Amino acid sequence: MTAMSEPADDDAPRRRTGGRSARVRSAVLQATIAQLLEVGYDRLSVHEVAAAAGVAPTTVYRRWPTRAELILAALQELSAVAIEVPDTGTLEGDLRSLIRSIAATVGQPALRPVQRSIAALPDDVAGEYRRSFWADRLDRTSAVVERAIARGELPEGTEPSHVLELLIAPIWFRLIISDTPLDDDALDRWVRAAIAAA
Amino acid sequence: MTAMSEPADDDAPRRRTGGRSARVRSAVLQATIAQLLEVGYDRLSVHEVAAAAGVAPTTVYRRWPTRAELILAALQELSAVAIEVPDTGTLEGDLRSLIRSIAATVGQPALRPVQRSIAALPDDVAGEYRRSFWADRLDRTSAVVERAIARGELPEGTEPSHVLELLIAPIWFRLIISDTPLDDDALDRWVRAAIAAA
Repeated sequence: MTAMSEPADDDAPRRRTGGRSARVRSAVLQATIAQLLEVGYDRLSVHEVAAAAGVAPTTVYRRWPTRAELILAALQELSAVAIEVPDTGTLEGDLRSLIRSIAATVGQPALRPVQRSIAALPDDVAGEYRRSFWADRLDRTSAVVERAIARGELPEGTEPSHVLELLIAPIWFRLIISDTPLDDDALDRWVRAAIAAA
Repeated sequence: MTAMSEPADDDAPRRRTGGRSARVRSAVLQATIAQLLEVGYDRLSVHEVAAAAGVAPTTVYRRWPTRAELILAALQELSAVAIEVPDTGTLEGDLRSLIRSIAATVGQPALRPVQRSIAALPDDVAGEYRRSFWADRLDRTSAVVERAIARGELPEGTEPSHVLELLIAPIWFRLIISDTPLDDDALDRWVRAAIAAA
């Protein structure tokens, strides 16, 4: 219950010290993810999230005044997971390794309700989140393309985000839009396509 | 009010004769689309749809027992719009024309709430609809690829749906997933990518 009386001091530096504030934050966001996976966006209850995290609902509302803000914070936490950037020595090897690990992660059926929830959020609520999330994601994996340019496998001036967007777009098209399963043949084809296009 | 007492005879042959049943069906589905655009999936009311279409709510419920079925029927109606399949004489010309007309149509901001609504529907409700919709869409535009094969621009055995999926996936990735605007440079790049990949 002390969680109810602590000051709203969840500024970034404090959060990173791993103190009580950080633990509360982490517990609430983990509980939010768990709820999202279990009941989906529409039926997510802030009270149940608070109960599962062992804090008072006011603690949740003080930091995340709306359900949408809470869910976005939880999704940001989830997506902060480091992506392993492969370094196999060839562009094809790197893209193949990258697309397989992305497909294995985001392709999990248990994640589909959360992914559909994000896709459902209107632009004015989640547009900024989605744009910055994807800019960051594409940026984090750009080394794969930059190394291929350095090795002479791709022309100077190739824009990494163009290559990577083309690589991952069909994954998301199948998962969210056409509801079609991913298969290894398709993944290999998209790798070759991204290379041929660049 | 006679709509309330007419038999539930909306079998396909009857529908296509353009009789009263077809008119009721069309009015209800048009009203559903209008509601979807205005208030979105979450707040769509079957009673308001019925009122706007000038029929009794029972008429709607008799044909489409659930809100999800009504919405899917409306979306199917909307997507039955004929796609113009270009025939410019070259694969690049055809794909360029196709991607521009697709982007101009599905890129309209007014459609985003409906598109997000479809993306939000769980797999068990809309999976079948999404798969058959996309199989049909890819099939209807396959002539573009088949003609390119006949002209010798693409190798024999090129699978049309693979080329077309790659062409349109980035459009949908930007509209629904990364919330990033489409631009002509990107459309041209995706055309070249789809050709290079094939």
